[in-house]
Amino acid sequence: MVKVVLLGFGNVNFQLLKALSNSDQVAVVQIYNRSKINTIDFPYTINSTQNLSEIDDADVYIIGIADDAISQFSETLKIRNKLVVHTSGGVSMEILSKHNRRGVFYPLQTFSKSRDILFQEVPICIEAENYEDLEMLRKLASFISEKVVEISSEEREKIHLAAVFVNNFVNYLYSVSEDIMIKNNLDFNILKPLIIETAAKLEQLSPKAAQTGPAKRHDFKTIEKHLHLLENSEHKTIYKILTDAILKQVD
Amino acid sequence: MVKVVLLGFGNVNFQLLKALSNSDQVAVVQIYNRSKINTIDFPYTINSTQNLSEIDDADVYIIGIADDAISQFSETLKIRNKLVVHTSGGVSMEILSKHNRRGVFYPLQTFSKSRDILFQEVPICIEAENYEDLEMLRKLASFISEKVVEISSEEREKIHLAAVFVNNFVNYLYSVSEDIMIKNNLDFNILKPLIIETAAKLEQLSPKAAQTGPAKRHDFKTIEKHLHLLENSEHKTIYKILTDAILKQVD
Repeated sequence: MVKVVLLGFGNVNFQLLKALSNSDQVAVVQIYNRSKINTIDFPYTINSTQNLSEIDDADVYIIGIADDAISQFSETLKIRNKLVVHTSGGVSMEILSKHNRRGVFYPLQTFSKSRDILFQEVPICIEAENYEDLEMLRKLASFISEKVVEISSEEREKIHLAAVFVNNFVNYLYSVSEDIMIKNNLDFNILKPLIIETAAKLEQLSPKAAQTGPAKRHDFKTIEKHLHLLENSEHKTIYKILTDAILKQVD
Repeated sequence: MVKVVLLGFGNVNFQLLKALSNSDQVAVVQIYNRSKINTIDFPYTINSTQNLSEIDDADVYIIGIADDAISQFSETLKIRNKLVVHTSGGVSMEILSKHNRRGVFYPLQTFSKSRDILFQEVPICIEAENYEDLEMLRKLASFISEKVVEISSEEREKIHLAAVFVNNFVNYLYSVSEDIMIKNNLDFNILKPLIIETAAKLEQLSPKAAQTGPAKRHDFKTIEKHLHLLENSEHKTIYKILTDAILKQVD
C-alpha cells in the first residue's frame, strides 16, 4: 500500500484524488489545502487539514498548486527527507526545496473539475533524483495509468512547449472560429464533429499527411476571399501567418 | 427511392457512396469519373462510366471534384434541367452551370479514403434555388445524417472560413508540435490524449471558458522560456502572435 498526501487541491490533485482512490493499492491519507475543502460530495472519507504542521506521514507527497507558487511552498513544508513531487509540466524538478527528496509526477492532460478523465490513458511523466524514488513513482503511476514514462526536466520543458501548441493555441483557434460563427448568427455546434474528427484523424495519419485546405492546395483565390471576409484584424494576422506557414510546408 | 448519380470520385463522393448505399431509400445508380474506378473492394454493385454522354437519369447529381474545377465541369455536362449540386464549402451555388437546377450538398467534415466516418453525425448544409429541390436535398440528407441545415452560399462562406481555423490551422499546429517532439527525440504519441481531450472538452465548455496556459495566466517567465526554446523562426512567430492574441482576450 502506497500512502499519499496531496498538497493543494486544484484541478490536477482533484482528478488525481479520484484516480488514486480507485486503486486499492493506494491510500490518500490526507489532503492539505490553504482553504477548507468541501468533502461532502466525495464517495470516500477524506482526512483534510489547513495546517502545514499537521501533515501526516506518507510515501509520496504530491504538490498540485500554481507553477509560480511551487518553489516557495515547498520551502515552507515542515517535513524532511520525504519524497515530494510536483505535477507541473512547466517547471523543473530543481525548483523544489532541498529539504526533501525531489521528484515530478506530471500527468500530461488538461484537467477541469467538471470533466471526468479516463486516467488509464493519461501519460504520466515521472522524474526523481534517485533510483528508488523513481521506482516508487513508477509504481504509483502504474496503479492509475497504462502509460508511464521517465522524462527529464529538460525533456519535460519541450513536451510542455509542444503541449502549448496542441492545447492552448488550438483552443484559441476554436475561440476564433466560435467568434466568426457567432458574429454571423451561425451555430458553432455544427463545427464540433469536424473539430473532433480533426483530432481523431491523428490516430491514422501524421498531421503533415492530414493537412488540407486552401493554403495546402495553394488556392489563392479562396485565401483572398477569406482575408476579405475577416473583419477582426487580429484574426486576419493569424490567418496570414498560418497560411504562409502551410504554404511553405514541404511535403 | 431517390436516384443519385455521383460525378467525380474523390474523398467526399467516396464517403457519400458508402453512406448513401447504406440507406434503402437511396439508389446510387451510377458513378462518373474521369479515370477508371476500382470497384473490386465495394460490397455493392456499381455502375460506373468515364463518358459524360452516358450519364444515367437520376433525381440528384452530386459533383465531388476540386473547387476550382466545379464551374467548368458543370458546363460540360450534357444533362439539362436536372438537380445538380456540388459538395464544397468554399464556393457558391452560382458557380454551377445554369443549364441545370442548382444546389449545394455540403457535408461539414474532413474526409479521407482511409477513415470511415459516422455520417449520421455529420452536419449536411443544403441549398437550392427552389423549394422543391431544397426539400429533395433535405430528404436525401436526412437518410444519411441527423443534422441537416439549410445554409445560404453567403453563410456557407463564413462556415468554411471558420472551418479553416478549426481544421486546417489546428492541424498545422499539430504538425508544429510534432516537429518539436521529433526534434527532441520525444514521442509525439504521448500528446495524443491531450489533443483528443482539448477537442472533446468543447462538449461541456466554450473555448473561451476552456482557455488555459502561460498566456492566459500572464506567465511571462514561461513565455520567455518557450520563445528561447523555439529554434524555428516560423514557430517563434506563430507562438508570439497566438500568445499576444490570448493575452488580449477579454474574459
